[in-house]
Amino acid sequence: MTERNIKIEAVERLAVEDQSVEIVERKGIGHPDSIADGIAESVSRALSNLYLDRVGKVLHYNTDETQLVAGESSPAFGGGEVIEPIYILLVGRATKKYDGEKLPVDAVALEAARDYLAENIPELEFGTDVIVDVKLGEGSGDLQDVFGEDNVEVPMSNDTSFGVGHAPLTETESIVLNVERQLNGPYAERHPYLGPDVKVMGKREDDQIDITVAAAMVDAHIADIGEYKDAVEHVRGYVSDVAREYTDRDVNVDVNTADDYDDGSIYLTVTGTSAEMGDDGSVGRGNRANGLITPNRPMSMEATSGKNPVNHIGKIYNLLSTDIAESVVADVEGIRDLQVRLLSQIGRPIDEPHVADAKVVTEDGVELSDIEADVQAIIDEKLADVTNVTRRVIDGELTTF
Amino acid sequence: MTERNIKIEAVERLAVEDQSVEIVERKGIGHPDSIADGIAESVSRALSNLYLDRVGKVLHYNTDETQLVAGESSPAFGGGEVIEPIYILLVGRATKKYDGEKLPVDAVALEAARDYLAENIPELEFGTDVIVDVKLGEGSGDLQDVFGEDNVEVPMSNDTSFGVGHAPLTETESIVLNVERQLNGPYAERHPYLGPDVKVMGKREDDQIDITVAAAMVDAHIADIGEYKDAVEHVRGYVSDVAREYTDRDVNVDVNTADDYDDGSIYLTVTGTSAEMGDDGSVGRGNRANGLITPNRPMSMEATSGKNPVNHIGKIYNLLSTDIAESVVADVEGIRDLQVRLLSQIGRPIDEPHVADAKVVTEDGVELSDIEADVQAIIDEKLADVTNVTRRVIDGELTTF
Amino acid sequence: MTERNIKIEAVERLAVEDQSVEIVERKGIGHPDSIADGIAESVSRALSNLYLDRVGKVLHYNTDETQLVAGESSPAFGGGEVIEPIYILLVGRATKKYDGEKLPVDAVALEAARDYLAENIPELEFGTDVIVDVKLGEGSGDLQDVFGEDNVEVPMSNDTSFGVGHAPLTETESIVLNVERQLNGPYAERHPYLGPDVKVMGKREDDQIDITVAAAMVDAHIADIGEYKDAVEHVRGYVSDVAREYTDRDVNVDVNTADDYDDGSIYLTVTGTSAEMGDDGSVGRGNRANGLITPNRPMSMEATSGKNPVNHIGKIYNLLSTDIAESVVADVEGIRDLQVRLLSQIGRPIDEPHVADAKVVTEDGVELSDIEADVQAIIDEKLADVTNVTRRVIDGELTTF
Amino acid sequence: MTERNIKIEAVERLAVEDQSVEIVERKGIGHPDSIADGIAESVSRALSNLYLDRVGKVLHYNTDETQLVAGESSPAFGGGEVIEPIYILLVGRATKKYDGEKLPVDAVALEAARDYLAENIPELEFGTDVIVDVKLGEGSGDLQDVFGEDNVEVPMSNDTSFGVGHAPLTETESIVLNVERQLNGPYAERHPYLGPDVKVMGKREDDQIDITVAAAMVDAHIADIGEYKDAVEHVRGYVSDVAREYTDRDVNVDVNTADDYDDGSIYLTVTGTSAEMGDDGSVGRGNRANGLITPNRPMSMEATSGKNPVNHIGKIYNLLSTDIAESVVADVEGIRDLQVRLLSQIGRPIDEPHVADAKVVTEDGVELSDIEADVQAIIDEKLADVTNVTRRVIDGELTTF
Repeated sequence: MTERNIKIEAVERLAVEDQSVEIVERKGIGHPDSIADGIAESVSRALSNLYLDRVGKVLHYNTDETQLVAGESSPAFGGGEVIEPIYILLVGRATKKYDGEKLPVDAVALEAARDYLAENIPELEFGTDVIVDVKLGEGSGDLQDVFGEDNVEVPMSNDTSFGVGHAPLTETESIVLNVERQLNGPYAERHPYLGPDVKVMGKREDDQIDITVAAAMVDAHIADIGEYKDAVEHVRGYVSDVAREYTDRDVNVDVNTADDYDDGSIYLTVTGTSAEMGDDGSVGRGNRANGLITPNRPMSMEATSGKNPVNHIGKIYNLLSTDIAESVVADVEGIRDLQVRLLSQIGRPIDEPHVADAKVVTEDGVELSDIEADVQAIIDEKLADVTNVTRRVIDGELTTF
Repeated sequence: MTERNIKIEAVERLAVEDQSVEIVERKGIGHPDSIADGIAESVSRALSNLYLDRVGKVLHYNTDETQLVAGESSPAFGGGEVIEPIYILLVGRATKKYDGEKLPVDAVALEAARDYLAENIPELEFGTDVIVDVKLGEGSGDLQDVFGEDNVEVPMSNDTSFGVGHAPLTETESIVLNVERQLNGPYAERHPYLGPDVKVMGKREDDQIDITVAAAMVDAHIADIGEYKDAVEHVRGYVSDVAREYTDRDVNVDVNTADDYDDGSIYLTVTGTSAEMGDDGSVGRGNRANGLITPNRPMSMEATSGKNPVNHIGKIYNLLSTDIAESVVADVEGIRDLQVRLLSQIGRPIDEPHVADAKVVTEDGVELSDIEADVQAIIDEKLADVTNVTRRVIDGELTTF
Repeated sequence: MTERNIKIEAVERLAVEDQSVEIVERKGIGHPDSIADGIAESVSRALSNLYLDRVGKVLHYNTDETQLVAGESSPAFGGGEVIEPIYILLVGRATKKYDGEKLPVDAVALEAARDYLAENIPELEFGTDVIVDVKLGEGSGDLQDVFGEDNVEVPMSNDTSFGVGHAPLTETESIVLNVERQLNGPYAERHPYLGPDVKVMGKREDDQIDITVAAAMVDAHIADIGEYKDAVEHVRGYVSDVAREYTDRDVNVDVNTADDYDDGSIYLTVTGTSAEMGDDGSVGRGNRANGLITPNRPMSMEATSGKNPVNHIGKIYNLLSTDIAESVVADVEGIRDLQVRLLSQIGRPIDEPHVADAKVVTEDGVELSDIEADVQAIIDEKLADVTNVTRRVIDGELTTF
Repeated sequence: MTERNIKIEAVERLAVEDQSVEIVERKGIGHPDSIADGIAESVSRALSNLYLDRVGKVLHYNTDETQLVAGESSPAFGGGEVIEPIYILLVGRATKKYDGEKLPVDAVALEAARDYLAENIPELEFGTDVIVDVKLGEGSGDLQDVFGEDNVEVPMSNDTSFGVGHAPLTETESIVLNVERQLNGPYAERHPYLGPDVKVMGKREDDQIDITVAAAMVDAHIADIGEYKDAVEHVRGYVSDVAREYTDRDVNVDVNTADDYDDGSIYLTVTGTSAEMGDDGSVGRGNRANGLITPNRPMSMEATSGKNPVNHIGKIYNLLSTDIAESVVADVEGIRDLQVRLLSQIGRPIDEPHVADAKVVTEDGVELSDIEADVQAIIDEKLADVTNVTRRVIDGELTTF
């Protein structure tokens, strides 16, 4: 049917869900590495949109190297202060001139960073709590004609790269991912003492799951140590509730275990992120494209955030393989663990990878042959629609970290 | 009577008002050098107030080295855009720790810069049109006990320095100073197309005064070349009116003489300052402490803006000598031209200068002996009250550029 | 025998050597990401030695965030020039004061960067072709007493982290690793036209190995396109020879496949690294601790370079697990594929990991029970000697990328 | 005879030599402000030469805004160390592309700074004791055709600006100027303990001259406090000898008066400049174009160093007026004090100033009419040869600070 090189095979190994030890981590949106990821990706989207608005197609750029240098702060119950600002350097390449017209690349990048921070780390005062500087060099000047308003072509692969995705999430993965999202979503909305720098670590040994949360508290909303303890306990209870939605296993939750009440060392911050006090950050050092760090699974080293979504094959394949894995598992019954890997072939359109391989662990009683055709069809369809990944990235529908 | 070394002498030279050629210049508050001056001084005041608030006295600091690196812009009738932001580096020394407590020196400096820009260059979007960075090193750590909440001592001079002031302003000086202030005050308020980067040059040859104004127009408020020409003409008329308040001599006014309508080269800006497009600036390169550049008069090379007002002898003496000269001329009749110079003496309190000399050109029919005692008394009194200069600087009552 | 929690198990999966598709990559020492890694690690070692020299023990620091911003160059046969310098920002935390004495942390970091660059990217003129700036904030001030001149203690784990190592290298891995090392070693010494930015990609499908090398040529040593082609061909031949030392499989070698002689696009550089022209770099984005990027194997996301080797559990465990795997395979016969993983336990000494698990694929005819005791003994011994990793890192005996 | 508007007049005021109080200052080449001046001017010359070499004429640039941020050091007898490097930011505008060719403006600027520092502040290790960064924006792109290899035209004045020069130097001026030059020349060569940051202040009251020298000593060459005292005393003696070559008045010399041996506060440095420890610097804040700060004489506020010597009218007129004054006094007998002032006229060639006025104080028995024609002829000739100033600046024959 298809001419794409799609290989589907059953593997003998245990599904990650069934392995005896599992480790999962998620750095929340306020973690310094995630701040770098988030800014890099929002700058990328802003540049894509700038180019589409001004010249009708996405020009060459890459903004995947934001560097965050931590500040210094003096938190205090009821409200402390930032002493030295955080410094963020936007780094990358961008096309600054097209057809004789100068494009406000630096200004747009700074605005994107400002807006992203305002939305996600609202306690950070832009320009005083955090200085954002920019060094975007001219790129090589190769223009990309492949993704425009009027027509969209499938670009050629110009690199040997690969992407890898998985589905479904294990229980532990689901817990870690959702705990962070719930804490940074509805919980923080109702409880402004919780800052966005929430780091969640999950460890499962057989049927015992330990969830460890490090949650930066915002000092302006916490009057004293009593309120702090209440906040920690309240977070703990909330996390336990969230976790129980995803598992029947035993779950133990710890919050801010590094606190030492005796010597007054607690996780109190002015702005809700440890970037204010000593924790540096940069792009690609934290969560993978599916939002998690999963040492039990193969991962790509490629930083996804900030890369050009039109032609960066590593970014596209990481997002696409995850999308494929999730779609397959959603539509096809009987899969306990699925890994999809896409390997590019230099000089070929990216919808024709060198190989797309799917490794399936089926559920008991299911044979690969029962489902192979369905899996193949979905992979084939998703590959055919590869440029949709680009569009969804530009529109902000796909997260990269 | 007094033990201060005050020398008053009549000089034979012509008053500047009576010399045949006179040149005067004022860089408006939106000029890149003035932006640097203004930020440096506002940072200085903010630090003085921080120290007074936190530790009850002004600690060691010096913030007289702001560097502005110009940006790049693309102005257009109806509203253009900034392409590359202006970069401003706050430079100096400050005490960052006192009695075990960290003081938010960097944060306060950045806030002062932000507030100053918002007030004076309102079209500049902080953090995106202009990046402000900060490098304030630790100072030598010498603490200043001399200017506190509870007691104020006269500090010792620790340097050989001098200050010089003049009064009254000549007609040309008055015109130049007031033209800029009126344009940047009531005129700009009524006519938002006028940006704060207004540079005024006055040249008098005998009784002919030429006033040349370079005025940055703000593109968002100017729809086309016709409106631009109207604006230029309107400014010209206004300046002529202001000038005529200060002189009966012939006044010729030119505005934006470098414009070339044929090749479309006009003084149109996005933000109202040439700093957006190629004009760098730094402290102490523009107006002297009295707000003017007056090559016909002795001037101090010392940058006044940003210096510590408690113990920087050059700053204090420049401001004080100007204050003395103005007070003398306001209170004593018969002076056509007065120059006051204060020279410090290392190791002595600054209210006892090595010498305070006043050079007087009297009006016709007035002898120095008629007024000498009055002049002497005022100088003596002002010197005795030297710490009042410090207080007025901190309170923002004295301008430094 | 031991109380350490060491788990050794046979796994059913195929050894990586026997899987049908294998991908391996190594970014050479002149690659922008490797430059960042190399500087970060050399700064780390310099600070360790500074602290040992001055205060007899390693103080708190972390320098794992070097950011490289690419320059711009104009290469030309016979010798071109750098137009805009590369900019490198050293980022991290360090203890700057101890016992009242100021420690020259910034100066030492800059010297380390300078010396590293001189040694490894010799064509780069320090300070003109590359600007190195530094932002090392004060750390949290916790002092580390555990690693001193006089006594060395095993530190406690303060984080949940893990490390993973493998042995033996597959043929493809061996080729990729050694091709880069040989090219950047003896080959470059004899052939100065070869720059240090050599990127090697290996792809094996069953018994066909494709090696793709991107090698930056140094323009001063290449007179014309003919010499360039000769150089490329010569590298190709050399790489083929190296590869054949490690395999009997079919090997195909390509060098600088992105060259397009028709439009004059070739991989010619002034300084031997693509950092001179548009390729940014940062720490932890390239090779893992064993020098390779191996998507077929579990990898740690942790950046190893620049981390404090005394107490950064991720760094220590990544290096130690690799060391263990290599030692086991060197000493014990019959192992086809070994993965060692160390998982820390907060609050316990790091020589007592939460779990040390070894997953073994034995050779045909070998049972795990035949070798289990030997494997266990080596793991136990290596864990007991964990502080030796720290010492070897500080002495520069262990590479981190 | 000539059509240039040259006005020569006798003035009634006292020659500066005969006034009762005179103040003169010179910041030596190692002073932070002078370092900024020196780098700015050497960058300017390097760019002029780059443009002449590459395109045969000097293109648009201006590099008059170097900012120096002080470092931090820990001097010690026998040799201390730099703790935090000095940071120098090169600021300005330059043409980076001409006729499709990219010009290595940044690289050349950095090399010029490096070479200047190596020559003048040799103890400063480039790149580790001092970081030099660069922000040279694109200028307006106006090309200067006026100063090329093949033909040289007199440029038009595009600004109202003026320059002022004086001759002969007073005794005090001569002493101040030559003391610094001798100390930084032959003395430092023989006595390496003397650093280049030598600040000389001269104060004359009637016939009493006080010379105060602040001389940074280099710690590596001074073993203990005894050697330090000897060095100070030796400098004092040397300065006295130099001074006596220029005057018969009483001369008192003080060296390092701020030293306090009791509390160990002395002027000891690692690198020979106070920039290593807390003294910031920038262009145009120190010496005027004749090398001195002379509050008794009219001075131009314009920074001379770093300005484009082809078309910056302030720079050219400051240098030219000084050159004229010196030439007149060298060739014409009977002049006790001469001030030459050049005022530009917008739109006219710069060899036809709006007015060139010379104010002469003749020696006793000499009438202006005796010498007027000679003075006029020299001024006329020098003006006619104005482009020679540009050439001499580019060749480094004229100093600017």
